[in-house]
Amino acid sequence: MVKFKKTSLIGVGLIGASFALSLREEKICSTITGSGRTEKNLIAAREKGIIDTYSLNHAEACKDADLIVLATPVGSFNDIISEIRDSIRNGSIVIDVGSTKRDFIKNIETQIPKDVFFVSTHPIAGSDRSGIAAARPDLFKDALCIITPTDKTNEEALTKVKELWKQIGARVMSMTPEEHDRVFSSVSHVPHIAASAIVKTIADINKSYIDFAGSGFRDTTRIAMSSPELWVDICKSNKQNMIDHIGILINNLESIKTMLKENDYEALRSFLNTAKELRRIIE
Amino acid sequence: MVKFKKTSLIGVGLIGASFALSLREEKICSTITGSGRTEKNLIAAREKGIIDTYSLNHAEACKDADLIVLATPVGSFNDIISEIRDSIRNGSIVIDVGSTKRDFIKNIETQIPKDVFFVSTHPIAGSDRSGIAAARPDLFKDALCIITPTDKTNEEALTKVKELWKQIGARVMSMTPEEHDRVFSSVSHVPHIAASAIVKTIADINKSYIDFAGSGFRDTTRIAMSSPELWVDICKSNKQNMIDHIGILINNLESIKTMLKENDYEALRSFLNTAKELRRIIE
Repeated sequence: MVKFKKTSLIGVGLIGASFALSLREEKICSTITGSGRTEKNLIAAREKGIIDTYSLNHAEACKDADLIVLATPVGSFNDIISEIRDSIRNGSIVIDVGSTKRDFIKNIETQIPKDVFFVSTHPIAGSDRSGIAAARPDLFKDALCIITPTDKTNEEALTKVKELWKQIGARVMSMTPEEHDRVFSSVSHVPHIAASAIVKTIADINKSYIDFAGSGFRDTTRIAMSSPELWVDICKSNKQNMIDHIGILINNLESIKTMLKENDYEALRSFLNTAKELRRIIE
Repeated sequence: MVKFKKTSLIGVGLIGASFALSLREEKICSTITGSGRTEKNLIAAREKGIIDTYSLNHAEACKDADLIVLATPVGSFNDIISEIRDSIRNGSIVIDVGSTKRDFIKNIETQIPKDVFFVSTHPIAGSDRSGIAAARPDLFKDALCIITPTDKTNEEALTKVKELWKQIGARVMSMTPEEHDRVFSSVSHVPHIAASAIVKTIADINKSYIDFAGSGFRDTTRIAMSSPELWVDICKSNKQNMIDHIGILINNLESIKTMLKENDYEALRSFLNTAKELRRIIE
């Protein structure tokens, strides 16, 4: 069973706070220090028993930690690593829980001290809600957690991090950072901005029409209520895959438009059926 | 309280069967005859107590009915009206529960005998599931039901149909057939085909990526599992609005692509925020 003495949680939001609660529940680590920009949030997290102590200074929070968790938006990782690198003690493990990988992993691997072990992870869990109010210790139970090792990843640390995620209930799987970003552009990042585009389209047509939305529309656009800041960050760090995949989505919508214009309803039926069959696989 | 002696239910699927169950629950009508193409389904509906008798012939099923409900896909309405028009007795009310309006209402109003009263209705209820297995008597409880009268609609019949929907729990609202079709193109029909296009995009990239879909993707694409036949029908009869609105959606996706290419993340944040604020209205 994997154990840590002190965890430093950098970024105390939904994912970070749920991770902290999971660590406690599984008795993997009892001492957890949080750091972040907003003192009010850190005080609330301490009151809820998510963290024991906090600091507004990331480097300060990392001192003596043997596990450091980057749980801020991915766009901040490079700056945070610069801030904390001289405060991380030798032998510590650093993980992140970011939704994109390729862009920052290379930089972190260059920046991080030789005797500190970085392993990048992405738990596929979340909610349209954000913040510590939505945090729960079972958020990662039965969730998939992707680990994206590179040729620079330390084998022992990799094994330990895999064990850690398994202990808090996740199913662990490995892939390269590049494949990770292609996969999640297609099943998460592009669907996300598409949901926002569907809502924005109603704003363009007539805002008041939103009142006629049924349960299907609510489901389809629920993720459009997530934090714009968080998603801008994700888009930024997975930009090229998203540009490519939005292009494919636009082509598909253009095809449907053409089918309608040309009254090619057999092609439309076949299109809808292809989508139906693929979607049913995950039902 | 509105009462009918015999209801003829043309098309015994999710909506039709739920409507029949609602009529029974509210004791609005005790005798219900179903008609449709598939005898197996009609037998099953009779066994479940949804209908009392059935016919494979729509005209036969309409005899002596004082309420006739068109609950087949909208594309079949014109043919059905031709089939049944000579069998409808004077004074009967004919309603439909179709998701589009403009295209067929004009035709029905021309076709239907002078002493038969047609009122077009659209209950905003449904499910990604279809068929009588998913039917339930409370499907329309608190659901919105849009009534789309024209200058040909009989006032007395209109009042009676409104009362009928209210009695089974729906909130009733009126608008013109033209506005109805614009509204539902934007909040239902285009979001629906967009959900299918999002799934189809993964088929184009790499089918196996579907395994990495999280709960957000599942929500966003749930409606892509609905019946392709039903949706082709809807697209067909609301074609022009959908072509226009898909065009606006494509423009929005092109805008996002451009923002990414030009690193205009402030514009992207503002786009996502506009969508978030509008979506939150219906949460």
